Amino acid sequence: MSTVPRTIRIHPDDNVAVVVNDGGLPTGTTLPGGPTLVQAVPQGHKVALNDLPAGTPVRRYNVVIGHTAVDIPAGGWVNGQRLVMPEARSFENLPAPQPPADLSPLDGHSFRGYRNADGSVGTRNLLAVTTTVQCVSGVLEFAVERIKKELLPLYPNVDGVVGLTHSYGCGVAIDAPDAVIPIRTVRNLATNPNFGGEVMVLSLGCEKLQPERLLPPGSIPISDEHQGPDIVCLQDEKHIGFMSMIDSILTQAKSHLERLNARQRETCPVSELVVGVQCGGSDAFSGVTANPAVGFATDLLVRAGATVMFSENTEVRDAVDQLTRRAATQAVADAIVHELAWYDAYLARGQADRSANTTPGNKKGGLSNIVEKAMGSIVKSGNGPIHGVIGPGEKVKKKGLIFAATPASDFICGTLQLAAGMNLHVFTTGRGTPYGLAECPVIKVATRNDLARRWHDLMDINAGRIASGEASIEELGWELFHRMLAVASGEKTWAERWGLHNDLVLFNPAPVT
Amino acid sequence: MSTVPRTIRIHPDDNVAVVVNDGGLPTGTTLPGGPTLVQAVPQGHKVALNDLPAGTPVRRYNVVIGHTAVDIPAGGWVNGQRLVMPEARSFENLPAPQPPADLSPLDGHSFRGYRNADGSVGTRNLLAVTTTVQCVSGVLEFAVERIKKELLPLYPNVDGVVGLTHSYGCGVAIDAPDAVIPIRTVRNLATNPNFGGEVMVLSLGCEKLQPERLLPPGSIPISDEHQGPDIVCLQDEKHIGFMSMIDSILTQAKSHLERLNARQRETCPVSELVVGVQCGGSDAFSGVTANPAVGFATDLLVRAGATVMFSENTEVRDAVDQLTRRAATQAVADAIVHELAWYDAYLARGQADRSANTTPGNKKGGLSNIVEKAMGSIVKSGNGPIHGVIGPGEKVKKKGLIFAATPASDFICGTLQLAAGMNLHVFTTGRGTPYGLAECPVIKVATRNDLARRWHDLMDINAGRIASGEASIEELGWELFHRMLAVASGEKTWAERWGLHNDLVLFNPAPVT
Repeated sequence: MSTVPRTIRIHPDDNVAVVVNDGGLPTGTTLPGGPTLVQAVPQGHKVALNDLPAGTPVRRYNVVIGHTAVDIPAGGWVNGQRLVMPEARSFENLPAPQPPADLSPLDGHSFRGYRNADGSVGTRNLLAVTTTVQCVSGVLEFAVERIKKELLPLYPNVDGVVGLTHSYGCGVAIDAPDAVIPIRTVRNLATNPNFGGEVMVLSLGCEKLQPERLLPPGSIPISDEHQGPDIVCLQDEKHIGFMSMIDSILTQAKSHLERLNARQRETCPVSELVVGVQCGGSDAFSGVTANPAVGFATDLLVRAGATVMFSENTEVRDAVDQLTRRAATQAVADAIVHELAWYDAYLARGQADRSANTTPGNKKGGLSNIVEKAMGSIVKSGNGPIHGVIGPGEKVKKKGLIFAATPASDFICGTLQLAAGMNLHVFTTGRGTPYGLAECPVIKVATRNDLARRWHDLMDINAGRIASGEASIEELGWELFHRMLAVASGEKTWAERWGLHNDLVLFNPAPVT
Repeated sequence: MSTVPRTIRIHPDDNVAVVVNDGGLPTGTTLPGGPTLVQAVPQGHKVALNDLPAGTPVRRYNVVIGHTAVDIPAGGWVNGQRLVMPEARSFENLPAPQPPADLSPLDGHSFRGYRNADGSVGTRNLLAVTTTVQCVSGVLEFAVERIKKELLPLYPNVDGVVGLTHSYGCGVAIDAPDAVIPIRTVRNLATNPNFGGEVMVLSLGCEKLQPERLLPPGSIPISDEHQGPDIVCLQDEKHIGFMSMIDSILTQAKSHLERLNARQRETCPVSELVVGVQCGGSDAFSGVTANPAVGFATDLLVRAGATVMFSENTEVRDAVDQLTRRAATQAVADAIVHELAWYDAYLARGQADRSANTTPGNKKGGLSNIVEKAMGSIVKSGNGPIHGVIGPGEKVKKKGLIFAATPASDFICGTLQLAAGMNLHVFTTGRGTPYGLAECPVIKVATRNDLARRWHDLMDINAGRIASGEASIEELGWELFHRMLAVASGEKTWAERWGLHNDLVLFNPAPVT
């Protein structure tokens, strides 16, 4: 089988290009207008476009991703073993904000969502049961099964029931400074827009995270019909026997289901979307295909007035100078640095740094180090100014492009974006992951044709067509934008069709006890 | 309704006693041979037996649990607000080991268990699916449902299928020093005796915790029939479409189920039991009723040659001098101090200390502080010498009484005791918790009659009868011992009958990324 060699050079000043062909390219392949390969280079990996003697800066995205550790001839394989990674960019002397002009408004698009009393809009109509502590998770699982079987069929307009179980709530140093993060995360999860403002809490009774600490007065928007959260406490003296606990949960669930069932989708402007973008199982195509397409869609959303969160501290750390330059104000730039510096210190406390981020799969997929990974990751944020910053577990309150500072762990980032108020999630992957959330639809975007072909019923969008020349970044970006509106209006993603979802995983930098 | 006032003074030198009566005792109640209450004292709370001017040492268990912060008259209520907690005992100048003589052997008892190729014995016959990373949990849940519906009915001798899902495996600083703890925990969970030596692994492919890192050669006992773990990798190129992944999992599950189904229970000596003892949702009765009964049973088990693990670092910290004195050797004493000192440092790193342990429920139940809680907690360990120490997530290899150093968090402690090789779990509670584990039977012991009455179908044993004078500690201890042998032989606990279990929750003191 003859192969037309395909490579991608992102920027004219780059001295490496990425091999596109499935299966990579063999020794002796002559690249169009470039060198002949002196060794086989796998798909997604980098080939030197000219001789790179030891110590040469290697440029991709027109950024130095490292210096060659050995002499690499033109046509040689540039990989993590052959690169010395740069030190992390100091927080001193960062560029002052020089934000791009606000993007031009985009009108004429809408979706069909569920309006909530607090002004937020849901893309799904779910009954969520908040928990104060892990101890109740077994009982809740039992109750949720019963609700699914006995109650949900009576309320056909409700999309499902979700137990918000987690590992927190007791056996933790709840007064340690960093405990604010998991506590506010659980609190803000309770009021995700997809739960219709119906807050129902399952408590054990003796736990550290008491219901009134989790949800103090004012933390829940109160509608006319119902005042504050409904709380079922297992240790309540009225409970005689296990079934009385289950009955209490089902009885309270009914009143919430009644109200949820009465709701209807209505036409909403795109500005009501709160979109979290994330990547996981990345490869060298992530930064070439899927993430630029997401970045294009991010710009469309922001132009239409929506909120878009990008995250993943260790994957933006090496682009901190890009971020401060794009900050809309000095206060935003300062907040970015504050979050990233806090995270550096958090990692150092555990004797780690940002280089702990990259995975075996990243490396196999051609990403040499965290600098290269970060440059590919950050393009999800598009080209507009950064309008705001929130800390991990905080609720987003602004429109526009927001840096939501979270760990890069897929499931932790997703949990924190949910707590921030995300009602739609976009997730790009090169290696492939069945990632999903029970709380919010996740549109998964494949970076490569091969992945999209093999995982045809798990990947929602194939951005690999950008690498193979079948579609442009703009075309894919628009396709994704339209799919987002369809999914926000109720169209099911693959993860939803199969019922696949990850666990909620909290970020708890404080000790357990 | 007239009430006969009942209080318990643990040691003749104690200057406080604990109120036994349901609902507590009202002002004006005269205690038999003691003072008249000058205020109402709730059940489980302490009453001053003589005048305690501010600064007086308050003794319970003949240990100073604090000094009075205010003048408390005889008949007054002694609680956390009125006590100044002592500083943590320094690790300097601890008593040298003066272990009690080994307890006399106990013969003539056995149970019916499943013998494994590696010499361990299961009390249940479960198919477990180990996971390398959280990313696969949604797929595994889907597959487990299919296995339950389609395969388990064909293998009636298999007790169930358990997905060993967790929050680890990627998005973590896997090379940070403390990462050894979660990694060895997941590894050792895979070979819990209740899984019959059948190790089946579900991997994503690109995760940091690669299967060969999780289970390096030699980490799994190999029987003649099967060499090493079966691994299903979702990213494997042979998988075309989601159903091919599910088919792979089901196909591999079948061969394991065949072998598990062929096993039979056989008579085993008590020495094959590996028992984890734990308490959660404790009250002031924990140290008077349930925990002493467990301590008595611990001694019976150790006398019969079994392994008994007690745990919960912050709940033994204030009894460190008792522990070093009971250590069988200086090496054991040193290992105890090593683990507790490491844990002190871990807490300090997060700006917390042992006092973060006590919960609102503990305090409501009469436990004034962590010192009082610790003294009541440690009696679960009985009266024998301490034969060994293991770190969190390590496998226990010795018989006898073992200090398994873990956080006191119920679900983390349980997960770590499972990793240590626990095949039977005993859990005492005063406030009440529906705690259970999918991997191992949990016998729950209530500390109070009222809890045992209300939670009659969740609590397996009622130790409240000790406080009400209906049974002695010895009688309860023997009752528990016999119940343990019955449950180890297949009798179901309440948690098993309802199918209640907590999530596995790992102890990860290293950073996430």
